[in-house]
Amino acid sequence: MRRHGHGTGSKGTPHQELLYDADIATPSHAERALTLASQVGTGTLCTLACDMPGHPYGSFVTFALDGGDPVFLISELAEHTRNLRGDGRASLLVSEPGDGDPLARGRVTLVGTSTILEGDDKARCRDAYLESHPRAAYYADYTDFHFWKLRVDRIRYIGGYGRMSWVEPDAWRGAEADPIAPHADRILQHMNDDHGSALQAYCLAFSRATEVASATMVGIDRHGFEMSAETPEGPRPIRVAFDTPLTDAQDARVQLVALAKKARSE
Amino acid sequence: MRRHGHGTGSKGTPHQELLYDADIATPSHAERALTLASQVGTGTLCTLACDMPGHPYGSFVTFALDGGDPVFLISELAEHTRNLRGDGRASLLVSEPGDGDPLARGRVTLVGTSTILEGDDKARCRDAYLESHPRAAYYADYTDFHFWKLRVDRIRYIGGYGRMSWVEPDAWRGAEADPIAPHADRILQHMNDDHGSALQAYCLAFSRATEVASATMVGIDRHGFEMSAETPEGPRPIRVAFDTPLTDAQDARVQLVALAKKARSE
Repeated sequence: MRRHGHGTGSKGTPHQELLYDADIATPSHAERALTLASQVGTGTLCTLACDMPGHPYGSFVTFALDGGDPVFLISELAEHTRNLRGDGRASLLVSEPGDGDPLARGRVTLVGTSTILEGDDKARCRDAYLESHPRAAYYADYTDFHFWKLRVDRIRYIGGYGRMSWVEPDAWRGAEADPIAPHADRILQHMNDDHGSALQAYCLAFSRATEVASATMVGIDRHGFEMSAETPEGPRPIRVAFDTPLTDAQDARVQLVALAKKARSE
Repeated sequence: MRRHGHGTGSKGTPHQELLYDADIATPSHAERALTLASQVGTGTLCTLACDMPGHPYGSFVTFALDGGDPVFLISELAEHTRNLRGDGRASLLVSEPGDGDPLARGRVTLVGTSTILEGDDKARCRDAYLESHPRAAYYADYTDFHFWKLRVDRIRYIGGYGRMSWVEPDAWRGAEADPIAPHADRILQHMNDDHGSALQAYCLAFSRATEVASATMVGIDRHGFEMSAETPEGPRPIRVAFDTPLTDAQDARVQLVALAKKARSE
């Protein structure tokens, strides 16, 4: 893990200075995008309208992922199904829910071509879909419902203001969803409710900040966590990396405790 | 307001019988759709990709409504803006946020053609947009940002399972957003926390239910409100209409109190 002495490396004005190394370990855009898509399970399917030929049409869908490709269970009666029957080209936008500034939240557009699923591919995707959407079990075998897959060939990730890229398809297919994501809200709440002094200690020990009145944990992923630190110059972001990427929620607890001990012994 | 004696009008099995008149006053699909779009302010813009010609592309946007047409403030650097510069055909999907079964929630697709705004039209739409999205004020006048409007000519509303229609454009443009919608969550919480006996009384006086152990208010609009009533046959939906459509949150209070008094004097 990279660490810094207090007050070293200052450059520019206090408002411009980053209080931690910009090259600290962070999730790649591929990992962030896949984690988002894995967590959310609903999105907008963009198809080409049948009855307004070539017109883009957006509809709400639930989905599951099969190796990076979204799988849908849709009715022959639905507009989007008729559209896909006419032209399989489609995209799926998945947006991070939440409060606050909507444009600061993450979203990913998966672009590709949709086909109806058959055989083994269908059986595997059906299981994945019903695991994510168990309510669909009662109509999954209706004759007017079919499983479809969007085979993704382009991926556009936007993480918020100014954080965006086209993710390489190989990187998308090689990415893993962050195992900490399902537990992140709970960990944040616990740390902020019960371990304010540890957060302050992390900031003072592992960043360039020299005065931190308090800190709030605002994000955690398997590579590290982010805090908003109250400094004399105002609130400042501080990221701290874990020694090794977390494997599960229990590992988060172990490493956060070890880091607190290390911070206080500095 | 339509009312019913106890236990009259039973048809079919207890599970099939509707405990209130199906033709009770309810919001039209046009009104529901416009209320949803007015409340949410974010959606998916579906455009035609420039660099994958004719391919549908979904992106996240914030919007405000101008007479039923969505207005966006978007950067020349964004994918969707390049796409609209190439072909103005677009649609906007707006989805109701919330928990529980995602397919039971409302959504509306607005289909039309997008153009950049100029002159008086731009000034009016700018005001509407910045009122809904005040954070955008600091970049609204950047030279690479422009206001665009999607001129809507088709409207697809889906209110949940089996409740869907194409809304006529005239009905869409003539609709008004329900003035109670911004207060609905608060009213529901208040009624459920503090007025359980009134809810039970509404069910017994204004529906065909003869035994109601308790009731939960699950929805309110300016035309009426919906409850889930605990009956010997299990939970059943009951809708009660207001005598006249509500004009504001204070009117909701007045009419709910009056209905409780009337219910208890039955």
